[in-house]
Amino acid sequence: MIQNKVFTYFDHNATTPVCKEVLEALPELAQAWGNASSIHWGGRMPKNILRDARKAVAESVGASSPLEIVFTSGGSEANNTVIKGLFDYYQTAQFLTPQQRLRTHYMCSAVEHPAVIKTMEHLQTLGARVDFIPVNRRGEIDLKFYEEHLCAETALASVMFANNETGTLFPIKKMAEMAHAHGALFHTDAVQGFGKVPLNLQELGVDFASFSGHKFYSLKGSGFLYIKKGVNVSSLIHGGAQERHRRGGTENTVGIGCLGVAAKRISLVSEKSQALAKMRDEMEKRILTEISDVTVTAAETPRLPNTSSLILKGVDGETMLMSLDLKGYAVSTGAACSSGNPEPSPVLLAMGLTRQEAQNSLRISLGWETTPEQINGFIEALKIVVARLRSLQNDEGDSCHV
Amino acid sequence: MIQNKVFTYFDHNATTPVCKEVLEALPELAQAWGNASSIHWGGRMPKNILRDARKAVAESVGASSPLEIVFTSGGSEANNTVIKGLFDYYQTAQFLTPQQRLRTHYMCSAVEHPAVIKTMEHLQTLGARVDFIPVNRRGEIDLKFYEEHLCAETALASVMFANNETGTLFPIKKMAEMAHAHGALFHTDAVQGFGKVPLNLQELGVDFASFSGHKFYSLKGSGFLYIKKGVNVSSLIHGGAQERHRRGGTENTVGIGCLGVAAKRISLVSEKSQALAKMRDEMEKRILTEISDVTVTAAETPRLPNTSSLILKGVDGETMLMSLDLKGYAVSTGAACSSGNPEPSPVLLAMGLTRQEAQNSLRISLGWETTPEQINGFIEALKIVVARLRSLQNDEGDSCHV
Repeated sequence: MIQNKVFTYFDHNATTPVCKEVLEALPELAQAWGNASSIHWGGRMPKNILRDARKAVAESVGASSPLEIVFTSGGSEANNTVIKGLFDYYQTAQFLTPQQRLRTHYMCSAVEHPAVIKTMEHLQTLGARVDFIPVNRRGEIDLKFYEEHLCAETALASVMFANNETGTLFPIKKMAEMAHAHGALFHTDAVQGFGKVPLNLQELGVDFASFSGHKFYSLKGSGFLYIKKGVNVSSLIHGGAQERHRRGGTENTVGIGCLGVAAKRISLVSEKSQALAKMRDEMEKRILTEISDVTVTAAETPRLPNTSSLILKGVDGETMLMSLDLKGYAVSTGAACSSGNPEPSPVLLAMGLTRQEAQNSLRISLGWETTPEQINGFIEALKIVVARLRSLQNDEGDSCHV
Repeated sequence: MIQNKVFTYFDHNATTPVCKEVLEALPELAQAWGNASSIHWGGRMPKNILRDARKAVAESVGASSPLEIVFTSGGSEANNTVIKGLFDYYQTAQFLTPQQRLRTHYMCSAVEHPAVIKTMEHLQTLGARVDFIPVNRRGEIDLKFYEEHLCAETALASVMFANNETGTLFPIKKMAEMAHAHGALFHTDAVQGFGKVPLNLQELGVDFASFSGHKFYSLKGSGFLYIKKGVNVSSLIHGGAQERHRRGGTENTVGIGCLGVAAKRISLVSEKSQALAKMRDEMEKRILTEISDVTVTAAETPRLPNTSSLILKGVDGETMLMSLDLKGYAVSTGAACSSGNPEPSPVLLAMGLTRQEAQNSLRISLGWETTPEQINGFIEALKIVVARLRSLQNDEGDSCHV
């Protein structure tokens, strides 16, 4: 029975399938097992792999030089490096201006990934002042609040390129300019944007940007941090001289090599992005027509082309997820990293949705391999699941026996 | 020509070849690309991979439970997590005793890996008091200094299980007991010991231990940290709830799965260890007999069975390394992470060797796949190289033209 079941993956914001090109490159990369820091023959192939990957990755994000790329173990490490690293740098570095030493104020949006939110909260325990910029239920970030709170003490503002749950795109270029006007640095967690929409760091004008390999069809445990030339932070991982003294630890040749392979596919993003937007828009249109009492969160604001965050009135998101799972569809109620947590999505609550609305939410995130046929199948399954769960809910006396 | 050259790898302390079992497991692990935190079908296989690997790894190091294992991106991250994490914890955690808040004193040996030394130096800039325990040229750590400096303020002592350059084994069990007598915690960087000699963390009685995948025939970018049940540190990487809230970031399924595969081979370590000691001892005996003016550093003290740190009088280590490389032999002058650095090994200098002696040093580190035939070939090559370099040196007028 289970062999005949069709498995459809609509949870690309949680992670993406490893692409064919990466799978094919894997065996050869694993054979290049030497230490890239070795000066004998063993180090030569790994060193070449790192150099090529750094160049490909730098080009894919529009960095001005490969030297602006620091390879990390993923997006969370990259985010922690920027936030803790800058706080630490302004506490400990020699040769700072008195003004720099006074910069102990941090800002981020209220809907950041936990790798930013939790890190900012941790800075608070170390004595930093942190402001969380509100986002309304349309997905718009409060630029007035941001402007009013930016000050001569602001060290860093960190605002994600795109939200992982709603797909909302934030005005990064403008917000970076506003930070710079106050002498503050600007970081964007671009983990969810890269591979979904075209992105150019030089155009955005940010000082730091974080990326994760497994969100663009490469391996978990790999990622990179863009640090603009001339900007300094303390290392999160002290150790050897790797990554030009910015990140200790023997380089992850396989993970980094695969990042390079995946980065070369990014030239397709514009075309893929358009195809995704078309499929997503058609899917939403049909769901809104064919299922009653559904709203799309933050639909009015610019969004990632692959993401759809729905509220289906009167249907528990977790139950919906599990019912769809039984039919072979992988979707989610929020970020995967907080799955299993009975609390409703902190992102949706921060946007002003009620607990009930947040508990009725479902996130569908499409990928490069998604087909219109998969979407048709999904809509039919969703209609059946929603109808059944709503009828069970209406027939409360029976629900406890189901 | 180059096709006929035999490549022999004698630099296993820098990194090890990826073993057959890991190479074979790799494609299947990469296919399990789901996010282990997802509660739909995509998360099930990765979750099983993590659970099995955690169990295998815990058993391989003699942990009392798989829950004591935190997967990291490698040994450097593990070391940083312990040292910075404990310092941070004693600064920021609620519900500490007044005595815990006073613990701002740290100790480590003077010959630790940079991931410990540099991290300890960084703690100094944050206000910690750090003592570096001397090691003499025989490789013996100064237990008197250690005893005299341990105090009621000591938070942590960190001493490596085995030195990466000389192979010296330190009295971890005794030193952990001494730390505990003062209420301090004890960490061992076991990166170089694991896979070379049998090791049991419960017997050693340490609170923390660091391990790196690529030092025991698995992938770079993977490793793990043992944190004894009941012991707390702040996270180095804040973020999602992964690793029971101790390390944010989507789990590196491929890297972790491979750690599990490699850990299952550790049952062979006792047998491999004996074979290595036999080959290494015979190699040293022959070198000492057949090449003049050679000494083995720290030969009198218990050492890893695979490591040989030589001083070849009057021969520049770097030149020797490059000459051997041309003959296909990969050896090193010190740690790979500081290769290319013209400064002589800080480990050898800390042990009291002169700069000249340190500059004449060569590290040979054998591995599980090393054969007596490879050693025979190496000794012949070394004899030729040393003779040539010594003759060049004696004929100083010519040396600058070579």
